[in-house]
Amino acid sequence: MAKKNFEYLEALRKVMKDKGIDAVIISGTDPHQSELPPMHWRGREWLTGFESGNGTNGTAVVLADQAYCWTDSRYFIQAEMQLKDTGFQMMKEDGPDAVDLIDWVTEHLNAGQTLAIDGMTFSVSYAQRLEQELNDNGIKFVDNFPQFDYIYPDRPERPKNKLFVHDEEIVGQTVDSKVEAVMEQVKGELANAVMLSSLDDIAWVTNLRTANDIAFSPIFVAYLYLDADRRVLFIDKEKITEEVQKHLDKYHFEVQPYDSILDFAAALPKETRLLIDPMKTARGLYDHIGCTPVFGGAGVAKLKSIKNATMISHLETAMKKDGVALTRFFMMVEKEYPEGKLTEVELGKRLRALRLADPACVDESFAPILGWNAHGAIVHYEATEETDIAIVGDGLLLVDSGGQYVYGTTDITRTIALGTPTADQIHDFTLVMKGHIALSNAIFPQGTRGDQLDVLARQFLWKEGKAYYHGTGHGVGFFINCHEGPQNIRLNHNPTPLEPGMITSNEPGLYLEGRYGIRCENLIVTVPAMTTEFGAFYKFQPMTLFPFDRTLFQKDIMTEEEINWVNNYHKEVYAALSPLLEPEEQKWLAEKTLPL
Amino acid sequence: MAKKNFEYLEALRKVMKDKGIDAVIISGTDPHQSELPPMHWRGREWLTGFESGNGTNGTAVVLADQAYCWTDSRYFIQAEMQLKDTGFQMMKEDGPDAVDLIDWVTEHLNAGQTLAIDGMTFSVSYAQRLEQELNDNGIKFVDNFPQFDYIYPDRPERPKNKLFVHDEEIVGQTVDSKVEAVMEQVKGELANAVMLSSLDDIAWVTNLRTANDIAFSPIFVAYLYLDADRRVLFIDKEKITEEVQKHLDKYHFEVQPYDSILDFAAALPKETRLLIDPMKTARGLYDHIGCTPVFGGAGVAKLKSIKNATMISHLETAMKKDGVALTRFFMMVEKEYPEGKLTEVELGKRLRALRLADPACVDESFAPILGWNAHGAIVHYEATEETDIAIVGDGLLLVDSGGQYVYGTTDITRTIALGTPTADQIHDFTLVMKGHIALSNAIFPQGTRGDQLDVLARQFLWKEGKAYYHGTGHGVGFFINCHEGPQNIRLNHNPTPLEPGMITSNEPGLYLEGRYGIRCENLIVTVPAMTTEFGAFYKFQPMTLFPFDRTLFQKDIMTEEEINWVNNYHKEVYAALSPLLEPEEQKWLAEKTLPL
Repeated sequence: MAKKNFEYLEALRKVMKDKGIDAVIISGTDPHQSELPPMHWRGREWLTGFESGNGTNGTAVVLADQAYCWTDSRYFIQAEMQLKDTGFQMMKEDGPDAVDLIDWVTEHLNAGQTLAIDGMTFSVSYAQRLEQELNDNGIKFVDNFPQFDYIYPDRPERPKNKLFVHDEEIVGQTVDSKVEAVMEQVKGELANAVMLSSLDDIAWVTNLRTANDIAFSPIFVAYLYLDADRRVLFIDKEKITEEVQKHLDKYHFEVQPYDSILDFAAALPKETRLLIDPMKTARGLYDHIGCTPVFGGAGVAKLKSIKNATMISHLETAMKKDGVALTRFFMMVEKEYPEGKLTEVELGKRLRALRLADPACVDESFAPILGWNAHGAIVHYEATEETDIAIVGDGLLLVDSGGQYVYGTTDITRTIALGTPTADQIHDFTLVMKGHIALSNAIFPQGTRGDQLDVLARQFLWKEGKAYYHGTGHGVGFFINCHEGPQNIRLNHNPTPLEPGMITSNEPGLYLEGRYGIRCENLIVTVPAMTTEFGAFYKFQPMTLFPFDRTLFQKDIMTEEEINWVNNYHKEVYAALSPLLEPEEQKWLAEKTLPL
Repeated sequence: MAKKNFEYLEALRKVMKDKGIDAVIISGTDPHQSELPPMHWRGREWLTGFESGNGTNGTAVVLADQAYCWTDSRYFIQAEMQLKDTGFQMMKEDGPDAVDLIDWVTEHLNAGQTLAIDGMTFSVSYAQRLEQELNDNGIKFVDNFPQFDYIYPDRPERPKNKLFVHDEEIVGQTVDSKVEAVMEQVKGELANAVMLSSLDDIAWVTNLRTANDIAFSPIFVAYLYLDADRRVLFIDKEKITEEVQKHLDKYHFEVQPYDSILDFAAALPKETRLLIDPMKTARGLYDHIGCTPVFGGAGVAKLKSIKNATMISHLETAMKKDGVALTRFFMMVEKEYPEGKLTEVELGKRLRALRLADPACVDESFAPILGWNAHGAIVHYEATEETDIAIVGDGLLLVDSGGQYVYGTTDITRTIALGTPTADQIHDFTLVMKGHIALSNAIFPQGTRGDQLDVLARQFLWKEGKAYYHGTGHGVGFFINCHEGPQNIRLNHNPTPLEPGMITSNEPGLYLEGRYGIRCENLIVTVPAMTTEFGAFYKFQPMTLFPFDRTLFQKDIMTEEEINWVNNYHKEVYAALSPLLEPEEQKWLAEKTLPL
């Protein structure tokens, strides 16, 4: 049975025909290259019917008689289902049957035909590669075709949520000092002005936040222009409260309408050397720049990644609050599990409620992953009414979740046994933990990259021919995005060294399709370890505060150092959380943190 | 006291002035980007007086009133000494005080000034980056300034050594099958012809070798052109014997004079798409290409790096021969050491003689490093008459050496105690060995790179704030270069995965300036380990056959797995070598390979 999407497709093809356009590529993002764009920019989901929810991965290609939607391996199963009877066919972005979208369109169009995009929703870098390959094949390129202006009748508005100031006592850094640091980077790139498009960069510089512009992240829709004399925030005026206006006045920001960004860019004086990050800036904005663009950037991401001592100490507070919520959550799970009425969706609701019970928690930091047994083996599983299962029988429950506290962002995964775990489950859990501990215990010289340390977390699994293929760790923002750059700990190369103040996740795992999944995740902060004749050495300090399931450790394959690590960590967890707990909860936690 | 080099510098500056050149960069290599160029191309050494000997690392920059020589951390101490009173100052290529040469010259020249190089001695890639940065700064670039044509009166000739055929029974692969494999790679790069400049690539494809063109490597000076119809070897005719001519005829090679390469390149038909490796091809050759150049390559290096089963089995023979020579050497050291007459230079001579006593050994594979105590801490120490010291008192002797056997190339480092080692020495040796063993024991999925495994060898040192900054492992050729790509095991990123058949060194170390040096090196071959639901996994197999010094292990910081590794390895060493030894030697080796 055909879905509504056929109508939308037909409408789009009519506009294409009128305008002499043979093919359109439609991105899944917004003018800020957001990972999770506001609903206003989710036209690709509306058009194709493929709603990845937890992420907005997906790029559509529409031709006169065919239509496709590219997505990555996390979403193959879901996309296949959702795209059924929409007129769109799924294409694979990665894995063994991957098809490169740009190669595909250049092969399927003829010289002289025209391909169009909405330049506001593609990065400068992507559009540049696309344009190059189209040119090489004699295909015409139109980069100002905002398809949803023509065919999307009930398009949601841009979000108008009110901003609030992120208390500088928590941030430990004034807006002035941040702008100064950014302008240093700008000078280093031989530019004299910068246009920030990335929403987390803008939230970081301005010490401003909001709720609900973007799911799970307190960032807001805006652009920010900085030069030696001017600080201009482009934003919908409705978002500015009196308090925020005072903050903006204090730091000498001008406010201009969000929609005036293109005219502003066009009117910049010729002598301006405007730094833009080609990965983060929209091609449509770039097209309008009236001065000299300088490609560079990543500077703000680097500044943002280094958390100062004030932030770290507040993050400890956030971690304690998170640990209390998790204590209550897992106590409840243990207590109610025997009744057999808990389900994954129900647990998700309970966990959310427990976190948000603390007024410092404004949202979850991502859609929680609650996977029981086989569902735990689906790396990016999101329980829905359709997939939900009851937590009954024996097995492993994987819980990956986090909170957006004004004191910092949390992200934690615990895998617990309910009923009686199997020997294989205990063995595999211990292998994962041995990797987690090896990474957590690492000491490394200044300049070491995450991709160099990654093997420490994988080595024990590899010895037995087991592996996980996701990253071991991602950077974590401070009351901003839960995933941020520039550092990470992955198989793939990343040139960024790990530096003191960076918060990164440590989350090795193992996924046995159809059986169970294991993941053990703490956030860790890089701190100085020592300085010797061989230079400065750094180490990690766990920030997350919650015990690992003691019943899942196979002690006979652990070294004394590994056992000590667990025992010491558990001792610290108990010391940090117990003062905040009720007596019954204290008792529960005391048992969970007994020595192995 | 000023050295002769001041005269040479003055002569060069006069030529520069006459030609309107403000700065010259002088490379340490030849038109083939050789690591160890023939004497003919060692003008940089002659000019600066810095003779790294064991390697020809070093790039000079000459300006009207200043002159510098860049080198890497292996040579800081030596370069500092040798450059004294030459008019050249040392600059550091790596380490904390590193100065990027190209950045430096662009900063120290003004717009409108001219910088020159001899394009035949710089790679296309390097020259391209240089040219780009000079252009960005308005500095003129001349790439055809062969400085040594003007100022080097007694310049050595190009080497004229005779070639010989590397027995195809040892190689296990015909020239035809190699050419075919190369042309497959060429097609894959959308080219239809290839010009090889790298001497080891050419020796590999042709199954030809020589002695003494290049120190320590049986490769020869030539270029090789291949297309679907032609195989053209550019080489000095004196080098071709009757046997070699027959081999060339059999495989349909034309021979053309070495010096005709530029004219040949210029005359290539326009429709030729000529594959060149921009890292291996001289800018001067590139400048002459008359057809369409296609950048790519690394294909031959990759083919060459995978050793077939015939090669591996012959390499075992080479390793046994090497083990016998080393047994005799270290027995002699132990026996004569108490007399106090051994010196580093003397030991080098003895070791060379013992290796070359086997007719299958045509040369050493590099200048051996024999360092007693403090000299062992100089990573690329080469004992000379000036630096030589007697092996007396207590301490550690580091011996890094290898042989070029027709059955394969060896490279081994052992560190032994003479007299009574200190507790620190034993502790540090054990840390190094723990790293060596961890790498040797690694199992890893297909696609894993050396830079991912590197930390396994360093982790135990890092825990104590100790470090070495050289690579943990380099690729090793098969009776070609002792150092070859594309794989390695290093701190730096290298995208090449480790594949079955690759031979790589495993050589962690520790260097305490002024005290002692430790390095423990085996060659290891990558072999399949297992295939599971998670894919194919590989592991390493040690190829080298000689015991590590049993008196230097601190057992109480070793795991059972580590102790077993040493004991099993020693058992294999004894089993492989003892049948080839005299009874007295067998007895000595039996003691050296007793369980820890």
